[in-house]
Amino acid sequence: MVKKYVYLFNEGNASMRNLLGGKGANLAEMTNLGIPVPTGFTVTTEACNKYYEDGKIISDEVINQIHESLAKLEDTSGKKFGSDENPLLVSVRSGARASMPGMMDTILNLGLNDKVVETMAKLTNNPRFAYDSYRRFIQMFSDVVMDIEKRLFENKIDELKEKKGVEFDTDLTAEDLKVLVSEFKEIYKKEKGEDFPQDPKVQLIESVTAVFRSWDNPRAIVYRRLNDIPGEWGTAVNVQQMVFGNKGDTSGTGVVFSRNPATGEKLIYGEYLMNAQGEDVVAGIRTPLPISKLKEQDPKIYQQFEGIVNTLENHYRDMQDMEITIEEGKLYFLQTRNGKRTAQAALKIAVDLVEEGMLTKEEAILKVEPKQLDTLLHPAFYTEDLKKAEPIAKGLPASPGAACGKIAFTAEEAKDRAALDEDVVLVRLETSPEDIEGMIAAKGILTVRGGMTSHAAVVARGMGTCCVAGCGTIKVDEVKRTIEVGGKVYTDKDYISIDGTSGNVYGEKIKTVTPEISGHFATFMGWADEIRKLKVRTNADTPKDAQQAAEFGAEGVGLCRTEHMFFAEDRIMAVRQMITSKDEEQRRRALDKILPMQRADFIGIYEALEGKPVTIRLLDPPLHEFLPNNNEDIKSLAKEMGLSFEELKLTVENLHEFNPMMGHRGCRLAVSYPEIAEMQARAIIEAAIEVKTTKGFDVVPEIMIPLVGEIKELKYVKDVIKDTVESVMEEKNVKLDYKIGTMIEIPRAALTADKIAKEAEFFSFGTNDLTQMTFGFSRDDASKFLSDYYDKKIYEQDPFAKLDQTGVGELVKIAVEKGRATRPGIKLGICGEHGGDPSSVEFCHNIGLDYVSCSPFRVPLARLAAAQAQVKNKR
Amino acid sequence: MVKKYVYLFNEGNASMRNLLGGKGANLAEMTNLGIPVPTGFTVTTEACNKYYEDGKIISDEVINQIHESLAKLEDTSGKKFGSDENPLLVSVRSGARASMPGMMDTILNLGLNDKVVETMAKLTNNPRFAYDSYRRFIQMFSDVVMDIEKRLFENKIDELKEKKGVEFDTDLTAEDLKVLVSEFKEIYKKEKGEDFPQDPKVQLIESVTAVFRSWDNPRAIVYRRLNDIPGEWGTAVNVQQMVFGNKGDTSGTGVVFSRNPATGEKLIYGEYLMNAQGEDVVAGIRTPLPISKLKEQDPKIYQQFEGIVNTLENHYRDMQDMEITIEEGKLYFLQTRNGKRTAQAALKIAVDLVEEGMLTKEEAILKVEPKQLDTLLHPAFYTEDLKKAEPIAKGLPASPGAACGKIAFTAEEAKDRAALDEDVVLVRLETSPEDIEGMIAAKGILTVRGGMTSHAAVVARGMGTCCVAGCGTIKVDEVKRTIEVGGKVYTDKDYISIDGTSGNVYGEKIKTVTPEISGHFATFMGWADEIRKLKVRTNADTPKDAQQAAEFGAEGVGLCRTEHMFFAEDRIMAVRQMITSKDEEQRRRALDKILPMQRADFIGIYEALEGKPVTIRLLDPPLHEFLPNNNEDIKSLAKEMGLSFEELKLTVENLHEFNPMMGHRGCRLAVSYPEIAEMQARAIIEAAIEVKTTKGFDVVPEIMIPLVGEIKELKYVKDVIKDTVESVMEEKNVKLDYKIGTMIEIPRAALTADKIAKEAEFFSFGTNDLTQMTFGFSRDDASKFLSDYYDKKIYEQDPFAKLDQTGVGELVKIAVEKGRATRPGIKLGICGEHGGDPSSVEFCHNIGLDYVSCSPFRVPLARLAAAQAQVKNKR
Repeated sequence: MVKKYVYLFNEGNASMRNLLGGKGANLAEMTNLGIPVPTGFTVTTEACNKYYEDGKIISDEVINQIHESLAKLEDTSGKKFGSDENPLLVSVRSGARASMPGMMDTILNLGLNDKVVETMAKLTNNPRFAYDSYRRFIQMFSDVVMDIEKRLFENKIDELKEKKGVEFDTDLTAEDLKVLVSEFKEIYKKEKGEDFPQDPKVQLIESVTAVFRSWDNPRAIVYRRLNDIPGEWGTAVNVQQMVFGNKGDTSGTGVVFSRNPATGEKLIYGEYLMNAQGEDVVAGIRTPLPISKLKEQDPKIYQQFEGIVNTLENHYRDMQDMEITIEEGKLYFLQTRNGKRTAQAALKIAVDLVEEGMLTKEEAILKVEPKQLDTLLHPAFYTEDLKKAEPIAKGLPASPGAACGKIAFTAEEAKDRAALDEDVVLVRLETSPEDIEGMIAAKGILTVRGGMTSHAAVVARGMGTCCVAGCGTIKVDEVKRTIEVGGKVYTDKDYISIDGTSGNVYGEKIKTVTPEISGHFATFMGWADEIRKLKVRTNADTPKDAQQAAEFGAEGVGLCRTEHMFFAEDRIMAVRQMITSKDEEQRRRALDKILPMQRADFIGIYEALEGKPVTIRLLDPPLHEFLPNNNEDIKSLAKEMGLSFEELKLTVENLHEFNPMMGHRGCRLAVSYPEIAEMQARAIIEAAIEVKTTKGFDVVPEIMIPLVGEIKELKYVKDVIKDTVESVMEEKNVKLDYKIGTMIEIPRAALTADKIAKEAEFFSFGTNDLTQMTFGFSRDDASKFLSDYYDKKIYEQDPFAKLDQTGVGELVKIAVEKGRATRPGIKLGICGEHGGDPSSVEFCHNIGLDYVSCSPFRVPLARLAAAQAQVKNKR
Repeated sequence: MVKKYVYLFNEGNASMRNLLGGKGANLAEMTNLGIPVPTGFTVTTEACNKYYEDGKIISDEVINQIHESLAKLEDTSGKKFGSDENPLLVSVRSGARASMPGMMDTILNLGLNDKVVETMAKLTNNPRFAYDSYRRFIQMFSDVVMDIEKRLFENKIDELKEKKGVEFDTDLTAEDLKVLVSEFKEIYKKEKGEDFPQDPKVQLIESVTAVFRSWDNPRAIVYRRLNDIPGEWGTAVNVQQMVFGNKGDTSGTGVVFSRNPATGEKLIYGEYLMNAQGEDVVAGIRTPLPISKLKEQDPKIYQQFEGIVNTLENHYRDMQDMEITIEEGKLYFLQTRNGKRTAQAALKIAVDLVEEGMLTKEEAILKVEPKQLDTLLHPAFYTEDLKKAEPIAKGLPASPGAACGKIAFTAEEAKDRAALDEDVVLVRLETSPEDIEGMIAAKGILTVRGGMTSHAAVVARGMGTCCVAGCGTIKVDEVKRTIEVGGKVYTDKDYISIDGTSGNVYGEKIKTVTPEISGHFATFMGWADEIRKLKVRTNADTPKDAQQAAEFGAEGVGLCRTEHMFFAEDRIMAVRQMITSKDEEQRRRALDKILPMQRADFIGIYEALEGKPVTIRLLDPPLHEFLPNNNEDIKSLAKEMGLSFEELKLTVENLHEFNPMMGHRGCRLAVSYPEIAEMQARAIIEAAIEVKTTKGFDVVPEIMIPLVGEIKELKYVKDVIKDTVESVMEEKNVKLDYKIGTMIEIPRAALTADKIAKEAEFFSFGTNDLTQMTFGFSRDDASKFLSDYYDKKIYEQDPFAKLDQTGVGELVKIAVEKGRATRPGIKLGICGEHGGDPSSVEFCHNIGLDYVSCSPFRVPLARLAAAQAQVKNKR
């Protein structure tokens, strides 16, 4: 049987979205519902994929089917391609499975040629309309299909307007446009070496091919990456009979929503313009009217329109975004789709639709994009201000929100100036743990280097602070205290504004506004919590973060990194004494100083969570991270510590590592220096006893041993911890429950999880490191080559942002299976950055983890993603 | 049923080696053969394991069984523990499954106490003997069982000898020894706070426990690691009635071999001493006689002895190493085991035993340790010189052999001085690829940093040059051009000698000798080749190495690293131009310069191998490895290259990586700069065409894409190569076969091998990197903490030397299975350092790989290991 690559609108329906694309499926569905839709057909996504498989060639098979469908279209419309009596004009539009607005190409008025344009002029009695359509078509076809620079055509229009002394395109006459048409054709001939194609069938096939090709244009690739759309989906192409909103005063065009997409208010919302085509609305030369005006202008049409809008909303059970055209008093719907909406609107609409009985709670849960919740939790730029601003650079959208302030060049400066109530944005080549206080003080953080999981990005997300990372086009001169972008120099007196959601950087002051969280949020999230099976914890290192996360609904701490506490000003010295110790005894003395501070940290976190479980990870980073690197700093620290420069320098050199990521860190530190683990275990348990005694919270501390790769390694450290815990409990004469488990972040741990589970009472998948080791690339270095990988379509997603289910996910599955085989009740969670990514959360749900843990500001997102996963895949 | 932990000698046999240990099983076997063996019993290895499982406590169950067996021993011997008529004395000796000479502890004369010593004096009419035995027992028991310092006892002996004005222990009288005994008991009491135990049963249980404990002493742990003996084997303990060779002139003791262990000559070989105990032979105070003298001295005893030796050799079908004692004219065999032998002897004995019809070739193949072959291929120290030398330091035995020369501090110096016929040893903190010419010129290489797979180690092994790596106790002052060890300073005028087999470093000149390879080698290796199924290739980057490997029997090149060629003096400049190129065009110009050089390299290698397959890996290291690091060098290079310092410095900075091992390297370079892969593919194919045309060798180049983690990545680079190859073949109008495959060295590649195999025609397991990624530690950094891991018995083996079958091996197995599922005929090999490790070779054989590839000097070893694997596990 011959494969069907082309469907007439009346042959499809809404369920065929994957094959026909969103637009095509909805055009088919509307056709079936009896809604006035200009006739047409859809070339399938499979034809697009075939085009790529065949080496970017459209096959005869597909061409023939297009011609067959075209013939049918001619039959039903009574019009004919190239006819001098009743010529058929069509639009050619892309339509992928997921909506990708503005990402791909559209060609209108296809079918016009030198002969047809005359016929049109006569038929419409409107030569200006005919020639304007023709010149637009030549321009679009040349640009979109033939890749001729748009500018060449625009220059001609500008020249002509100048010559005629007029301001607007609309001031040009039919004769002027006729001249333009012949000039445009000359440009075409000059650029392509052949005449502008006069055969509408050639125009059509070339245009369809151009749409296929546009699936792989750079901006489409980037859009797909940002929106998790796989490249293999392909796009469909819709060929549809043209209708004209610019045929005079009884014609018009409009874009409307069945509810307000900004607020969610239940009221038809939109704009229309009479005697105009879609383009004119966008161009902004004439001001469109609110759709409510149509009711006054043409009540009959409005009534028909309103009826169809309601039909569509009821049919799709969601807010609809529609495109309409009125041609000489006849209403057409050119498109309908579920409308994009703001986060506020999404919540209101979801809650309203449940209350109206249109949706169940489970269905409503699917109506809000988890990532949208981000915008509810962070400041945004004031829209009016933003409209006027031009970005000066673009980095990675590392932590959402918007921030504005004067430039601070060091963390210390940021802290000091913020203390004087100045708004500052901290700009650094990259941040390090020592910068933590400045990062807290700053409104936003901008770094030149580093990716989505760089120190700046991770810490900023944790704090909910806006951050743009890896903005390589900015040149920072730390000595002169300036930054330079595009030839312009900014000092600490200058404002910059950064948008952590888009990655945009602005060289000016832009006002920010903090969103209000409505009651709908609570209602909606309540439903999410009812539905989901996967628990959501948070990654929090401080009582403040833990508190914040608890307010956002975290059900515990999944990862408390103990090393961040080590950098605080009041304890880094003790930590450094510990590191430079000559022997165990000296080290123990230094650790004794750190003990009470760690204990206080843990008390704070336990109290913030009021007895919810807390997973505390033992010291993880290599020790050299706590020491300075350059001779200057070593000198001054040596002095401070009462060591000789040579002594300290030698320590620093001895601790130097070629690949710190794979160095002396994690549980390897505890193997070499068990006294560190002892101190931490003591602090964890003493704090739990304190909180139990004074506040009555029954904390069950979960002590997590990082970077385990071998059961004996885990056993060794576990024994050290257990001995300490038991003796603390004996000293204090208090018994409490606790768990000892491990992070699974080394491939070998996953591969030998059956053995590891003999000793581990819980696994927490550290998917950041597991991703690094599984892919064999360091997240700090990968940004250098990942862009080449995206360009060449090798990777479509940043594996540090979205869990790689094929490779890393395979290891996680192996570990889950093997771990449960040994210890059926083992508690399983994930604490990598992926815990806050919706598709990764879904994966965790599907493979049966108990919880995900993510940064505080991502907790709501994870709760929603978990609920959606349960609706999609009940477990 | 009660588990049996103790076996009388007549209850066991040779097949029970795992349970009874080697010594115990052989004592049982000899007993059954009717050979005169003093009676006794063996406490099993399971009892040892139980001791550790029970938390280092010997259980009552085991104690009771020992007491029961002791009672039986008393019955059969007619002697009794502590008896004042006929007291039983026993020896307590360890005996593990594998022989570990000198590694664990022995206690002799157990059963003596203040009363028994008197009885013995009377019974033997030899009070001197009795008291000498007692003082020895106290000394041994105190040292071995009670951990009292030996020195304390030796001091007393020295004091006494001085006081008496005598030179030798043997000059001390019975009365002197009696005094010593009481002084020894005082020391014991002072040290332990209690009297020396008088109850022989207490002495016995304490001693058995001490032997169990000694299984885990540091030197035993190190020995096990060097000899691949798992910790969980445990040791057995043999308790045997004492016989005395020191009871007068009709008594004696000896150590004999059924053939000469140094040469393999078929002649009973050994030494004996009358009126002596084993200890005396070792102490070297009296000179033992060759065993042939015994024939003259006591022909009757000798005849019995010779008969038993022949019986044992025929029974065990191998050269035996035996211990005998003659007590008052009665001959006893205290031990027999397959004798240790030199490599030369091992080969001769194996070949002779086959010729004598005692062994089949398959059995003979198992009689030579693969690692022994190393000593046949490398120089060794002249034994007489070595005896007089004392090591000044010890590093890692990174590449076998011995070397002696004056110290050279830089590679350039080594090269220059070697050119003047001076023998030099290159001493560096660590080596880098730029040092290659100096490394070739030096007799040996000594580094302060780096492990078994550091640059120095890998390159040295490849060249067959002796190397000691990671010798941290040496302080190198590169400015003063001195090294300091233990307070002594050495300059470039001083000789040092290094032993790459032991890791020893000597601060003096020691003569080296080059071994002769006998005809037995060829015969024996011929059998190995007949038997084995696994092919053996070599890792070789130069024609010279390839040639050497071919002489050693390599069947092709499994890994030709193309980057080593990049460092040669005549091309590094072109490589640097390539790296500092501003755009593709500039880069292509630089690559054009490199092309003819690469082509010449490949021609050389193809020719050396005369048409055998050659796997060539595309450029692998990150580009910054080719640029200098410090400002000085950058400055001078910038000048040389006509760049500004700032420009070059910026390039160096931009290329800097946090974790180079996980950075922009391997196929990632080819993705970013496909023109590099193009140039290399062109050189590979042009060279093959050249060699085919001029020499008639039909080379099938195997182009290997490194560091692949994702199928699309492989596909991209493969397409680049394929296009180049096809166009080269078209240009030259020659067709030839070639293969494109990949290294499996990233966990994700192994996990997705079913996908990878769609594009890869072969897999070569890069187990060096795969080990790093699977364990999550960098081989450059791991040496810092691995020693802690060995000390704490977490790892018993260096996973970079011996393939970790549990974790890394699991990934290899997954990849083999998945790869074969997609492409049943896929060629599978291994090219990591593990290709030259016998147990890893066996693993590769067992999982069905097609070949292993190792450095040239390990090829014979791998051939033998492969044959042994086939004998052990037919496939």
